Amino acid sequence: MLHFDCDYMEGAHPLILERLVEHNMVKTIGYGCDDICAEARRKVLEACGNPDSEVHFLVGGTQTNSTVIKALLRPHEGVIAASTGHIAVHESGAIEASGHKVLTLPHRNGKLVATDIDHYIEHFYGDESFEHMVFPGMVYISLPTEYGTLYSLAELEAISEVCRKWQIPLFVDGARLGYGLASEECDVTLADLARLCDVFYIGGTKVGALFGEAVVIRKGLVPRMFTIIKQQGALLAKGWLLGLQFDTLFTDGLYLKIAAHAVAEAKRLREALEAKGYRNYYLSPTNQIFLLLTPEELERVKQVVTYTEWERLDDGQTVIRLATSWATRKEEIDLLIEKL
Amino acid sequence: MLHFDCDYMEGAHPLILERLVEHNMVKTIGYGCDDICAEARRKVLEACGNPDSEVHFLVGGTQTNSTVIKALLRPHEGVIAASTGHIAVHESGAIEASGHKVLTLPHRNGKLVATDIDHYIEHFYGDESFEHMVFPGMVYISLPTEYGTLYSLAELEAISEVCRKWQIPLFVDGARLGYGLASEECDVTLADLARLCDVFYIGGTKVGALFGEAVVIRKGLVPRMFTIIKQQGALLAKGWLLGLQFDTLFTDGLYLKIAAHAVAEAKRLREALEAKGYRNYYLSPTNQIFLLLTPEELERVKQVVTYTEWERLDDGQTVIRLATSWATRKEEIDLLIEKL
Amino acid sequence: MLHFDCDYMEGAHPLILERLVEHNMVKTIGYGCDDICAEARRKVLEACGNPDSEVHFLVGGTQTNSTVIKALLRPHEGVIAASTGHIAVHESGAIEASGHKVLTLPHRNGKLVATDIDHYIEHFYGDESFEHMVFPGMVYISLPTEYGTLYSLAELEAISEVCRKWQIPLFVDGARLGYGLASEECDVTLADLARLCDVFYIGGTKVGALFGEAVVIRKGLVPRMFTIIKQQGALLAKGWLLGLQFDTLFTDGLYLKIAAHAVAEAKRLREALEAKGYRNYYLSPTNQIFLLLTPEELERVKQVVTYTEWERLDDGQTVIRLATSWATRKEEIDLLIEKL
Amino acid sequence: MLHFDCDYMEGAHPLILERLVEHNMVKTIGYGCDDICAEARRKVLEACGNPDSEVHFLVGGTQTNSTVIKALLRPHEGVIAASTGHIAVHESGAIEASGHKVLTLPHRNGKLVATDIDHYIEHFYGDESFEHMVFPGMVYISLPTEYGTLYSLAELEAISEVCRKWQIPLFVDGARLGYGLASEECDVTLADLARLCDVFYIGGTKVGALFGEAVVIRKGLVPRMFTIIKQQGALLAKGWLLGLQFDTLFTDGLYLKIAAHAVAEAKRLREALEAKGYRNYYLSPTNQIFLLLTPEELERVKQVVTYTEWERLDDGQTVIRLATSWATRKEEIDLLIEKL
Repeated sequence: MLHFDCDYMEGAHPLILERLVEHNMVKTIGYGCDDICAEARRKVLEACGNPDSEVHFLVGGTQTNSTVIKALLRPHEGVIAASTGHIAVHESGAIEASGHKVLTLPHRNGKLVATDIDHYIEHFYGDESFEHMVFPGMVYISLPTEYGTLYSLAELEAISEVCRKWQIPLFVDGARLGYGLASEECDVTLADLARLCDVFYIGGTKVGALFGEAVVIRKGLVPRMFTIIKQQGALLAKGWLLGLQFDTLFTDGLYLKIAAHAVAEAKRLREALEAKGYRNYYLSPTNQIFLLLTPEELERVKQVVTYTEWERLDDGQTVIRLATSWATRKEEIDLLIEKL
Repeated sequence: MLHFDCDYMEGAHPLILERLVEHNMVKTIGYGCDDICAEARRKVLEACGNPDSEVHFLVGGTQTNSTVIKALLRPHEGVIAASTGHIAVHESGAIEASGHKVLTLPHRNGKLVATDIDHYIEHFYGDESFEHMVFPGMVYISLPTEYGTLYSLAELEAISEVCRKWQIPLFVDGARLGYGLASEECDVTLADLARLCDVFYIGGTKVGALFGEAVVIRKGLVPRMFTIIKQQGALLAKGWLLGLQFDTLFTDGLYLKIAAHAVAEAKRLREALEAKGYRNYYLSPTNQIFLLLTPEELERVKQVVTYTEWERLDDGQTVIRLATSWATRKEEIDLLIEKL
Repeated sequence: MLHFDCDYMEGAHPLILERLVEHNMVKTIGYGCDDICAEARRKVLEACGNPDSEVHFLVGGTQTNSTVIKALLRPHEGVIAASTGHIAVHESGAIEASGHKVLTLPHRNGKLVATDIDHYIEHFYGDESFEHMVFPGMVYISLPTEYGTLYSLAELEAISEVCRKWQIPLFVDGARLGYGLASEECDVTLADLARLCDVFYIGGTKVGALFGEAVVIRKGLVPRMFTIIKQQGALLAKGWLLGLQFDTLFTDGLYLKIAAHAVAEAKRLREALEAKGYRNYYLSPTNQIFLLLTPEELERVKQVVTYTEWERLDDGQTVIRLATSWATRKEEIDLLIEKL
Repeated sequence: MLHFDCDYMEGAHPLILERLVEHNMVKTIGYGCDDICAEARRKVLEACGNPDSEVHFLVGGTQTNSTVIKALLRPHEGVIAASTGHIAVHESGAIEASGHKVLTLPHRNGKLVATDIDHYIEHFYGDESFEHMVFPGMVYISLPTEYGTLYSLAELEAISEVCRKWQIPLFVDGARLGYGLASEECDVTLADLARLCDVFYIGGTKVGALFGEAVVIRKGLVPRMFTIIKQQGALLAKGWLLGLQFDTLFTDGLYLKIAAHAVAEAKRLREALEAKGYRNYYLSPTNQIFLLLTPEELERVKQVVTYTEWERLDDGQTVIRLATSWATRKEEIDLLIEKL
């Protein structure tokens, strides 16, 4: 049986483990105040071409989303997200637990559209009845989206412009950022994100690390972020574990290199499956493949590979997801193509 | 200019003011622990035919909703509501501020449907991926709904049955309860509510009182509700003000009597407007009238009466709401009919 | 039996009831957007000599404290209060329910001391270990305090100076403000409060109103306070009820006039009791009297008057509180003095 | 320079790293639903002699404390803790952020005393004025305490009895549990904890793991704990990382074996320092040493070793903490003794 359930089934890139073993017994101070973290921060900012931001390392995605959103919103504010956004659906109410509503707008291929955001916010200026509603205090998007789709640079710039017009921060969830940036169809760079967003994060858990997300915050935007992270239970005692991983991923371009591998293998698999007559449900140019399967196709697939069931349609068809990762081996893809 | 913006434009029924003036200088202990409140509680329970419930008096609707919902839910739980539910739209995120998500389901004429609720909850049993989602911990409905519509007894029984099947409480927002119960089309009684719900409240603010909501809770459901009310800032120091109002409203059937007046006047207005060619947008058998107006009609209406703008449709038409109340005078209705 | 349990045992000043009866059937728009509220706000600001602040009317004290504190703090911040502060002891955790810690400092006669605050805050600058602790984000004091004591102008200025030095807001709980300002020993005025605090409120519930607190906020300090009030369930539908009461209290100096009466009667009672050998526990120059009673004295008192038990000391003595109010009649005091 | 700042300066026990390297590329399902976690749970429960509890693996201590406490408390409840308890002082308000007050009682050598707890809770039954206060909903103790001291079995049984009398859960923070259990002076076992507590956790971060705490919960106490963990951002995607670590620590008694080493070295250091005239501030029989130093002694110590400054006393003396760990080498201790 092959396994393509998700992109976090393996541990860490071997280079990370190597350094971990090497550093294991070196006494290091806690909470990310050590030199390894300092160096990792420097490298991340260098990759962003933006030495003036702050970098904080957190452990996982839901934790990062709820910590950042709580840190940015005032009590009466909510966060705008696509109805398919991770924070709206799959975080067990983490955002609401911090006191804030997720204000969902309809998605298009998993994406928000700048003009939709603009029209939504507009109501809150001038129309008194909206004073009884949750005020939109920030915008959250995922890049790539939960459907593996990408914002073009033009789309991202348009959303950023709307946010600046209304003076609310733009936050990009980059849990799979590497797999977006490494796609041939992506015209957005780390430097663009640093320029257009107020906060974004570079996902490690799904792209080469054991765990970890590197949050890049516009300088001065969130005073005392350290204490907020601690309060959220998101401050790792041995913070150097996070620094060491990001330092490795941002040395010699490892992060994008291993992401590119996953995207290339996904592309190869997608094209092979299309050639065999399988139908894509979303056109994802990243490491996720969404297939629309008839009951017969589903039965066949089940014999060969484990996957994530995405949605059962009323017509009896099923949407499933296959995900490649930095750790996917060519032979696995070959075998999967052969068997399907 | 006439005023039909909403049903809380006047103060209290004169009998209430009379008693208030009379009692004003009598020294009374605080926080609702006084005899007037005790007597009011007794009368409310008598009206419900349910001497075994608890009654708590709170000041307003949003406060009551957030206090009750917070009191009932565990951290990982949310509250199911119609997408048009007051808690989902017009309470500035009060529910989320207490840490809980409002889980919206599509409405039908402002109402939830029992089978929709059932199917929604079903997913959370057996399907592991739902463990990453907010668990449905209670059901909230409004009676009448925000659109002035009514649940039939059969519909309410069906929803109650679903709630009991899944062992989650049913909560009925009765901010306008009198205007529902007093409608000719309503086959639900206070005794039915006491039987079928776990918590419901009898709105005073919109039905004869200066302010106040009487919350009826199934005995033992919420230990130490007093402290929770205090914590929410919802405990009135001079609690006897609430007791005195509900005692008056529940003496000699005053509550339903004055509600019936409002509903009758609304009916008279609705029929007269229909005769003149105005179109209803929702068929509300209670004290609210929703009109669908062309731009020309709207212009005419604006000259005569103040109202609440409900929705601007894409085709240029507007939905407005006119509301009668216990205080509406026959002459006002006559005049409004004449002028429109 | 006489009743001196607290200062909120009666309803409202007769002039308020008169106006309420008069206005009762006048249709008025909701949520405090009406003309009566506007006029009341104008008069409150005039009394403060500070036309540039905002005034919001809320219903009760705990509600006001939790709403203001939540509105001012960021997530990692707490509020400094005396260990005897109302928010620290008697609000059922309302502040914590909004996500914030009450940071208690030792009290001196119910009061905070400026230098204590200064030293406490100082630690959070420069000492890294304090980054794991709740950051002090504002200062809360009560005037008069829970023990009926008063801050002198010099003490208030010193605290204000510390707050400005560290750039955190100063919030004064004035639930009994009238009884403080009306004391002969008070050298603080409304204008001083407006000058030295960032937020303070003028208590109505305990000083002449049925209910209501007028919150005065430095302009621009809390954007969209209206929505925050709504979210907290603290927005009264018939907001004009609050405006009408404060408009009456701030016409012709009624507020201070009736407060002065309560303070004078308390003084008369205190002096008479001292002459009879009763011992004060705190020296309160306002409307509250704290007596230290032997078991025998307590037994005697119990026969004559209802009171609030404040504290049982280990040596068998008991501290009780008697409170006068705007509504206390001279004859009651005469009788109480005679009987004790 | 030697380093004895804390007990989490090194990575993981070599056996853990070995297994990590070995398992790194094995595809494993997420969120702790894998076989390694199942086996680790089995071994932990076996060590507790209590096959009927639930085990959940979380990443760190603050996270565990706030997740467990939130999961157990109703809205109006707070958690009783020693004034020196970690949740009361050094978690940046994590408990308050979840809506609950920490109810601090005076400590004796860092410990709560059963009779103090009993008297505190007693007030909330029968005395109405306590209905305005936060209700004590659970008890939190640390074993060992923040001062390295230990509860005897008799003390623990007494506290457990009080909790059962009042029907509130007892929660033991075992961030350093190993160093407690391994102390010669400890007469409490894992089986005792399983018998006497409702929830406790076995700290890994400070005792041999890279990170991780194993929470043992009485069966049925917290329905849907998985979702609550997710909501708190505390669910590790690659949950097997936690399972693997605890599986290793609970194979062949490794956990207690390495803890015993740390305690033995601490004892050796403590006795040597005493012999040299250094004074202990707390008598800690575990892995922490608290020294009371004159300014001259402090100056000498500073040249030799890094430590944690605990407290500056008014008389100019300083309390510092030195901590050994599972990773402390004998030679380090020898050198430290020699140099001091």
